[in-house]
Amino acid sequence: MGKVKQVSVAGLGTVGGEVVNRLRSTSDELAHKSGVELELGCVAEPEVPDNFEGKLEKVNLYDDVLEMLENENPDIFVELIGGVGVARKAIERALKSGLDVVTANKELLAKNGDEIFEVARNNGGRIRFEASVGGSMPVVRTIQESFVNAEFTEIYGIINGTANYVLSRMEEDEQEFSKALNLAQERGYAEADPTYDIEGDDSAHKLAIIAALAFGNRVPLENIYCEGITSIRPEIIEDARRLGYRIKLLGIAKKINGGLDIRVHPTMIPRDSALAAVCNEYNAVYFQGEPMGSSMLYGKGAGGPATSTAVIADVVDLAGGRKEAETPVYFSEVSLTQVPVEEVKTRYYIRLSAIDRPGVLAQVTRILGHWEISIETVIQRGRSGAAGEEVPVILTTHEAREGPLQTAIEEMTGLDVIGAQPEVIRIEEGFEGT
Amino acid sequence: MGKVKQVSVAGLGTVGGEVVNRLRSTSDELAHKSGVELELGCVAEPEVPDNFEGKLEKVNLYDDVLEMLENENPDIFVELIGGVGVARKAIERALKSGLDVVTANKELLAKNGDEIFEVARNNGGRIRFEASVGGSMPVVRTIQESFVNAEFTEIYGIINGTANYVLSRMEEDEQEFSKALNLAQERGYAEADPTYDIEGDDSAHKLAIIAALAFGNRVPLENIYCEGITSIRPEIIEDARRLGYRIKLLGIAKKINGGLDIRVHPTMIPRDSALAAVCNEYNAVYFQGEPMGSSMLYGKGAGGPATSTAVIADVVDLAGGRKEAETPVYFSEVSLTQVPVEEVKTRYYIRLSAIDRPGVLAQVTRILGHWEISIETVIQRGRSGAAGEEVPVILTTHEAREGPLQTAIEEMTGLDVIGAQPEVIRIEEGFEGT
Repeated sequence: MGKVKQVSVAGLGTVGGEVVNRLRSTSDELAHKSGVELELGCVAEPEVPDNFEGKLEKVNLYDDVLEMLENENPDIFVELIGGVGVARKAIERALKSGLDVVTANKELLAKNGDEIFEVARNNGGRIRFEASVGGSMPVVRTIQESFVNAEFTEIYGIINGTANYVLSRMEEDEQEFSKALNLAQERGYAEADPTYDIEGDDSAHKLAIIAALAFGNRVPLENIYCEGITSIRPEIIEDARRLGYRIKLLGIAKKINGGLDIRVHPTMIPRDSALAAVCNEYNAVYFQGEPMGSSMLYGKGAGGPATSTAVIADVVDLAGGRKEAETPVYFSEVSLTQVPVEEVKTRYYIRLSAIDRPGVLAQVTRILGHWEISIETVIQRGRSGAAGEEVPVILTTHEAREGPLQTAIEEMTGLDVIGAQPEVIRIEEGFEGT
Repeated sequence: MGKVKQVSVAGLGTVGGEVVNRLRSTSDELAHKSGVELELGCVAEPEVPDNFEGKLEKVNLYDDVLEMLENENPDIFVELIGGVGVARKAIERALKSGLDVVTANKELLAKNGDEIFEVARNNGGRIRFEASVGGSMPVVRTIQESFVNAEFTEIYGIINGTANYVLSRMEEDEQEFSKALNLAQERGYAEADPTYDIEGDDSAHKLAIIAALAFGNRVPLENIYCEGITSIRPEIIEDARRLGYRIKLLGIAKKINGGLDIRVHPTMIPRDSALAAVCNEYNAVYFQGEPMGSSMLYGKGAGGPATSTAVIADVVDLAGGRKEAETPVYFSEVSLTQVPVEEVKTRYYIRLSAIDRPGVLAQVTRILGHWEISIETVIQRGRSGAAGEEVPVILTTHEAREGPLQTAIEEMTGLDVIGAQPEVIRIEEGFEGT
């Protein structure tokens, strides 16, 4: 056994509270399993939440995290404040003081990862961030350690539990988006303001970190095309089901001809794929690459208990000893050019509301043909019986480029036989192992 | 960067050949990513296979692994010979010489893990064995490191690619077992003698290692109830489909009232579970526990490239530095008593071949009632029309104890209205996240 390592924690929110309680209650088991002895010495939290059930006796409690770092001398600093303000100051301060740092702060790493890791490298500090991506799923460790020898080609992630829960409830309960979202809020799977989750920002933050690690490439957040799930209607989910797909909010990163295709959007994926079986609040990250082949991690992507698992694993890892390479250099490197979203090639589902009149399909297919978009299936549903009424026309295309596809959609929208704005969902099918 | 670490490899089979080639071709990338420099200094292989495509210039090649360990002084010894003979001698010899060891040898660890780890502890040696379980899936690392703080309750593993491939082909192609096995052999997913895979021994070896790590408990191999897939017929697979299940060869380990329920057998699991979506040669391990909740790893469980991923990750890990706790103590500890298979409680599918005559069902249900086994569904299929012919009767039970169930089956077999030996498949449904 080495000496007892002193741990400090900033932030007593859902994750922080769980980490503090578990560090105190399970330190003997941790010592037995890992050989490291941990002691929680100090905690920073300006307002201890009313529902915090842990005990803080024998722990120095500070209002101000910077004051804590000034006065105390822990071995490991755990940042669970969140955001890019005081959290960033505290992490940089800790690294400069030679402390090891654990953080769950995806927003900070996605936005300022390169600067943070630069501070770490310049000061010989170490930083662990498993909890920043995918709760208890060991995404960071798997990419950095287990797949250290891998050449990644494609990554697909269901990395937002709120969005996945909403889409699952919409499908299973045949509900409208708003009702499924209300249910998610009642069950605690969605915030009162759900924007960050359902608009894809949270997924984009996680994807930026995953892609940086896997592709050894700095990924500026503004380069990630991002589309949320608010416009998904039950009719589209039903169309997906009939076509053999399920809709998921996916984070996608692919290496294509020396470029990086990276985006977040609702996606139709084959219903019988392992990824499609990931439902409700669960998350998964699917990796394709050599030599490991198709691989997937699955688990709870959020919540105090699941996320505390990752935080404590990182604390134990840092407490256990020092390795030669400690801080990823990838965040500052750019080896792949960004593939503009207009250049991305994928398959598409298109739902048109068309006047039920002969010749409509000819006009639509002529536009697609002009832009060299080849149609795979056309389904015309529920004819009204009355000529001149609007009926849905569902198309799927073979692989096409996004730019021409969007132009074609614009042209279709301009046709007087087309009603509402056409709805477009991208289709991805490159999953093995199903 | 630290000093260059010398690596030695014993065994140039499927995995060894891949490891040797990748160590040589990717050492610069590995150095960049991990900060460690590796050099392959020597290889032991009595008969270099004709299909070995790598180059061994500047590498000292030995026929005899023990001679190699006598003459050379590598930092890391990679054992890819397999079996419990010379492999064990070589590993113990290496550990005693202070070398770090990487092995993929599941049989050796399952049978002699406690002795091997004892040698490691006594000599301060380190041993890594990610490749012994589940190919490229990071099972060992996830249990030991990512879930270091976890209390596991249940583990379910599809941990044999051959068996999973055969069952998948039987279901999808509606084939007999023997035809699906032939296909697996043609495709290279099954050995000429497939016994080790299809009878469940391979799964039992892996499960013994997984359970030892997860439950901190020595698991003698002979304590694992083991049943293979050779008696699975297309009719049973079709019954499973209609009942909403899919059949998988599962390794199961559960902590129950201070005891360990551990077994390998074909199992019906819900078709819509994430585990049921794991098909063909793919493997998965599903963990249930606190605080991480339901988690699953998915990937290629065998083959040179996938397994080399795990071997190289272990080599890099050892080369990267020393941590405080290096060798699991669990293998020698017994904290849980073994739950005898007769005491195991689960649900059952029972398929009877019964004479099509009034009163038969009454006799069957009377026996089940006598043993307090409660029936969930009864389906009598395809009545012959001619009284006195045999027809299938399919039953599913609520949770029952194995002992009484087996006695009831024996009693049913004795009835003159029952034809062939009844077929019994256990049902497991405890999967969240679906």
